[in-house]
Amino acid sequence: MFKLPKNLFRPLRPVFRPTRLYSSVPLTAETYKDKVSINDKFKKLNDSDIEFFKGILKDESGLITGDDCLGYNEDWMRKYRGQSQLVLKPRTTEQVSMILKYCNANNLPVVPQGGNTGLVGGSNPIFDEIIISVANLNNIRSFDPVSGIFKCDAGVILETADNYLADNGYIFPLDLGAKGSCHVGGVVATNAGGLRLLRYGSLHGTVLGLEAVLPDGTIYNSMNSLRKDNTGFDLKQLFIGSEGSIGIITGVSILCPIRSSSVNVALLGVSSYEMVQKVFIESKKELGEILSAFEFMDLNSQKLVGQYLKLDHPLEDEYPFYVLIETSGSNKDHDDEKLETFLANQMEAELVNDGIIAQDESQLRNLWSWRESIPEASTMNGGVYKYDVSLPLDDLYSLVEASSERLRGEGLVDFEDGSKPVVEAIGYGHLGDGNLHLNVCVREYSKSVESVLEPFIYQWIQEHKGSISAEHGLGFQKKNYVGYTKNDIEIKLMKEIKHHYDPHGIMNPYKYITA
Amino acid sequence: MFKLPKNLFRPLRPVFRPTRLYSSVPLTAETYKDKVSINDKFKKLNDSDIEFFKGILKDESGLITGDDCLGYNEDWMRKYRGQSQLVLKPRTTEQVSMILKYCNANNLPVVPQGGNTGLVGGSNPIFDEIIISVANLNNIRSFDPVSGIFKCDAGVILETADNYLADNGYIFPLDLGAKGSCHVGGVVATNAGGLRLLRYGSLHGTVLGLEAVLPDGTIYNSMNSLRKDNTGFDLKQLFIGSEGSIGIITGVSILCPIRSSSVNVALLGVSSYEMVQKVFIESKKELGEILSAFEFMDLNSQKLVGQYLKLDHPLEDEYPFYVLIETSGSNKDHDDEKLETFLANQMEAELVNDGIIAQDESQLRNLWSWRESIPEASTMNGGVYKYDVSLPLDDLYSLVEASSERLRGEGLVDFEDGSKPVVEAIGYGHLGDGNLHLNVCVREYSKSVESVLEPFIYQWIQEHKGSISAEHGLGFQKKNYVGYTKNDIEIKLMKEIKHHYDPHGIMNPYKYITA
Repeated sequence: MFKLPKNLFRPLRPVFRPTRLYSSVPLTAETYKDKVSINDKFKKLNDSDIEFFKGILKDESGLITGDDCLGYNEDWMRKYRGQSQLVLKPRTTEQVSMILKYCNANNLPVVPQGGNTGLVGGSNPIFDEIIISVANLNNIRSFDPVSGIFKCDAGVILETADNYLADNGYIFPLDLGAKGSCHVGGVVATNAGGLRLLRYGSLHGTVLGLEAVLPDGTIYNSMNSLRKDNTGFDLKQLFIGSEGSIGIITGVSILCPIRSSSVNVALLGVSSYEMVQKVFIESKKELGEILSAFEFMDLNSQKLVGQYLKLDHPLEDEYPFYVLIETSGSNKDHDDEKLETFLANQMEAELVNDGIIAQDESQLRNLWSWRESIPEASTMNGGVYKYDVSLPLDDLYSLVEASSERLRGEGLVDFEDGSKPVVEAIGYGHLGDGNLHLNVCVREYSKSVESVLEPFIYQWIQEHKGSISAEHGLGFQKKNYVGYTKNDIEIKLMKEIKHHYDPHGIMNPYKYITA
Repeated sequence: MFKLPKNLFRPLRPVFRPTRLYSSVPLTAETYKDKVSINDKFKKLNDSDIEFFKGILKDESGLITGDDCLGYNEDWMRKYRGQSQLVLKPRTTEQVSMILKYCNANNLPVVPQGGNTGLVGGSNPIFDEIIISVANLNNIRSFDPVSGIFKCDAGVILETADNYLADNGYIFPLDLGAKGSCHVGGVVATNAGGLRLLRYGSLHGTVLGLEAVLPDGTIYNSMNSLRKDNTGFDLKQLFIGSEGSIGIITGVSILCPIRSSSVNVALLGVSSYEMVQKVFIESKKELGEILSAFEFMDLNSQKLVGQYLKLDHPLEDEYPFYVLIETSGSNKDHDDEKLETFLANQMEAELVNDGIIAQDESQLRNLWSWRESIPEASTMNGGVYKYDVSLPLDDLYSLVEASSERLRGEGLVDFEDGSKPVVEAIGYGHLGDGNLHLNVCVREYSKSVESVLEPFIYQWIQEHKGSISAEHGLGFQKKNYVGYTKNDIEIKLMKEIKHHYDPHGIMNPYKYITA
């Protein structure tokens, strides 16, 4: 088998800390007591329930109670904390089915959980919902090296899947910073986007089949599906991006592309956002089929990364914007020539002011780290309000400027000396997908900052015909704001689907869509 | 604006004849009287219904009655004929909404129709259902040359859309033989696959938003969606491939890629199906990101095309199998070098016996015609039983051999002299997608031939874990065979969705899935 280097693509990853104890994270139910209250129709968990679950799981290590649940109750941003007293970690799809059937019959609410790396509070309970973790469903089921079809359990870690595929000359069609912790099932359940979407498209196109357990215990299984199968409604699509609201994904079948043998990365300094857009159009024309990432970052995001990494920026002078371009292809000489010609053309046309191309893998990792470290650098002063939005490209960066201006107008911002609650609003993201990450970096979470940001940001997005969630999902954070992106009929139809599959509302309650 | 040549890709297209009168096509209700009977709970169309529709449409030309409905009652294969006495051709989405609302309230069954180029009898009535044609919804709505997002009415002809995109340097991410007749809405409603799926993926990944009218008249609209939008269930996915069973698609928003400036085509002669598979694996590795088609054809299919085109085959000697490879890229020199090196390697490894590369556009069209003319060549002796299946690659061609053997065992086959009802079972298709087209070319349609083929072929596919419909859909032809591909739970869940959206069952009855 033709082998390609592993881990060629992503350099640094955020360090996730799901099991570490953070006593200071306030309870979600307290922080948001004006927005959410417990649904009294749910049954309270009791000892006989726990005995029943013990009987299903057999293995004692699959059942966690009391204070040991903390790592599962909290999210990695330290923003949300639930109060679950029970975590179940089934080892088979049949166990998941028995658990859900019981919970559904007994009105016990549940929160499905994968790698717990979500960014909108979707994978943690609000009150005392039972957490069902798929971490113990972690087998790779099969791989066909002719077709590229890969099948695995939902709890397989994304990086494990990608390394396995690398050994076979293939690549997982999705990548993101949390790959060392997030699960394959979780990225499908949240329809994650990430760094390879520009090249390989969305999971709605690449996922071929799913195994999922419905609230009543029914096991839906389309894992046998081939690349093309036009025999009826494509039901699996409903689960992609459903955030645990209508069932628990337990298995995934996905089409994987051949791993490119040649990867190049360039980092460019650009004088304005208008120029960034022009460089993007030119890159689609000139780099065409080898373009695999087009990421942009603003100057403040790079300053924070510099502080976080304690390193000097690869480009000597400062520029208002930076662009990271990655190419992936099958012929290194051809790719080098395309990229070098492209960059020379951009410099000559004065669209790009300065640039650097990685000459080896270490430099490649280094350049990526200036994009990939932004999420961690954003939180290093205390915390971050994250907004992950889609906007028409023309308007994309204006949202960062509008947010910064509004925060400054309220006297809340100080980048340097630490006297104000907000460090700065920074912008970066997958320009190739029209996807902006607006991070408002703060020294502490506070209601006063949040009320300046929301609903202002959502209203701004609505006025500019964007989406309030490009890839992170709705979860708890954006549940009440879906109306800024979806119209009344869409919301009505979504509520009907929720009610159709989860009539008792036990699945991931208080989030996403409620019927 | 950077311009690229139009119509570079497809040479010959089947000649569609939807409005020509074929008095000899028997009524579907007669041919299949053992399989289907009229549902008496439906109301019979009367004069006051017609007056109501006239009031909605205003324009007289949008309402066709009596014998003038013939072209809409028949399919282009001359296999199915319905008995509708009314065709409605609304000009606005609101008119579609008013029509459906009335039909739903009055229990009047309807058949949505696009270009009427389907291959499974899905777009023609069985009895006297009202035909709702979207042919008059034919405006291009918008195109954004930065993002590549194209929006149009459902009735825009695929070729019209692709030519418009070509003028803007872009390409529609789907192509098929019927592009001169089929509609954009129709390809989405049937989840068509076609010739570009290998490169650009399925419509589930490229369609960004839809406008569709539900049976009760509700207008679902997600046309504003951007490349990424993770705010709730992706409801539009249910309509992709729903074959008019839960609503009528009236508008489509789709992400289009940049049109490649360089296109190459090669035709290869290969000594066995095993070698064909090996050449495919090597092509994925060596041609990687520029591979845009990998089609295979067997010898008999090429013999029929030779008779049909009255031409000598481009390759001098005969081979058991032929492979057509297309590459599309942004740099002609690079692409030429990749393709020539690849072919030299295949010849040296003795995987390929002979081959030819098109040197200009005329040769390129000529090579494609040996693949594209197969559907027409298949019918030239009278008719064709078409099976469009997905199978694991190993087993793909064995189905053709098994079918031919079975027909020969019954003494039904004669390729040359015309004394037997069957000419031959031939095989070709999109090998890159695991998609085989098995065409059983006949001199006339007959129950005796059909009963030898069905359910034999469906059982064979089930045993080999394939799909009985890779891209053509279920329609009327395969309605009763869905159980050979989908399991009981999948079918139950599909029936629930059908009932959820179409509780009275007025949408495209007797086909697809019935609740």
